[in-house]
Amino acid sequence: MEFSSKLLENAVNEMSQLPGIGKRTALRLMLHLLRQPKEQTSDLSKALSNMRNDIKLCKNCNNISDNDLCEICANPNRLEDIVCVVEDIRDVMAIENTSSFRGLYHVLGGKISPMDGIGPNDLNIQPLVKKVKSGKITELIFALGSTMEGDTTNFYIYKQIQEFKVKTSTIARGISVGNELEYTDEVTLGRSIINRIPFEASLKS
Amino acid sequence: MEFSSKLLENAVNEMSQLPGIGKRTALRLMLHLLRQPKEQTSDLSKALSNMRNDIKLCKNCNNISDNDLCEICANPNRLEDIVCVVEDIRDVMAIENTSSFRGLYHVLGGKISPMDGIGPNDLNIQPLVKKVKSGKITELIFALGSTMEGDTTNFYIYKQIQEFKVKTSTIARGISVGNELEYTDEVTLGRSIINRIPFEASLKS
Ligand SMILES: [Zn+2]
Ligand SMILES: [Zn+2]
Repeated sequence: MEFSSKLLENAVNEMSQLPGIGKRTALRLMLHLLRQPKEQTSDLSKALSNMRNDIKLCKNCNNISDNDLCEICANPNRLEDIVCVVEDIRDVMAIENTSSFRGLYHVLGGKISPMDGIGPNDLNIQPLVKKVKSGKITELIFALGSTMEGDTTNFYIYKQIQEFKVKTSTIARGISVGNELEYTDEVTLGRSIINRIPFEASLKS
Repeated sequence: MEFSSKLLENAVNEMSQLPGIGKRTALRLMLHLLRQPKEQTSDLSKALSNMRNDIKLCKNCNNISDNDLCEICANPNRLEDIVCVVEDIRDVMAIENTSSFRGLYHVLGGKISPMDGIGPNDLNIQPLVKKVKSGKITELIFALGSTMEGDTTNFYIYKQIQEFKVKTSTIARGISVGNELEYTDEVTLGRSIINRIPFEASLKS
């Protein structure tokens, strides 16, 4: 692509760094912004840099938060001893949306995936093992979606905490095999949390 | 969508203002940015606001430019008396890419589209009529893509300049009917410029 403007070219190049956005799409988006009032672009630009510079990870659960402790962890009405293990904030949002879970979360920040070069040490797993070891958790719910990476991650964590006295369960397989959690409708997802089964039992099925 | 972070929510909302980007996609893009070094987001943020604040429209052809006169209009080797009428910068880029045109452009900034509330006065048409009137143009090439809006716009301009002595042509219909210019491969597009036909002849086909 030959641009008549370095300013436009630069914006298109930066935008097309984002996954799934090619140069042609980026150009279409930039031409759209140029037709809109300047405020729209400055609002977008500020929102992006404020987010990237000021966002925090909750000290307790590793969820994305504006404060040191996220709203869920800071809520005294949540059950601290039941912890739901999820991949990222999208899963927290999906489960919160069902209103069927009153415990806390533990956000791993990904799943074990040798194909993508993601090993256990790249994830927020050790703090979880430590939490379990401390004896404050009575039940751990694995909610990683039923993909191969999800199963591998579940099993890895299970092996690490097996020796400690903690009930483990996985959300019921109402969610279709191979499906990501965030694409599951809320009724199915809510039901699969209520119908969760002991992790050991899930290994046999 | 219930967000645990206002900063994230704000960025997702701004991003999803862009056409074709829903909230779910915007969230995926934001989570991607949060996993990348801060520089990527600040580069994107700066590129967007620099573009929107500093970009200019060429005083001669209305193309997007970093200077008062775009690189094409400022190039002394281009033929000033042959002017190619296009919708926007994407068409300029597409035609430049074929290396088959040595004249200048006139960028309308859109096409006449009553459905979208775009009339002749919303487009950069009068300056073109003025240019033709001044007698400096010997040939006008209509290159608006063969959609109904393109045909309407061609015809409207043709009516305005008909009385002045200027050769008019449209790019040859090697491009498939109903297709936008920017999606035409460069060989086809290059050939359709070389094989351009008088505008009057195109009305009969
Ligand atoms: Zn938290
Ligand atoms: Zn120009």
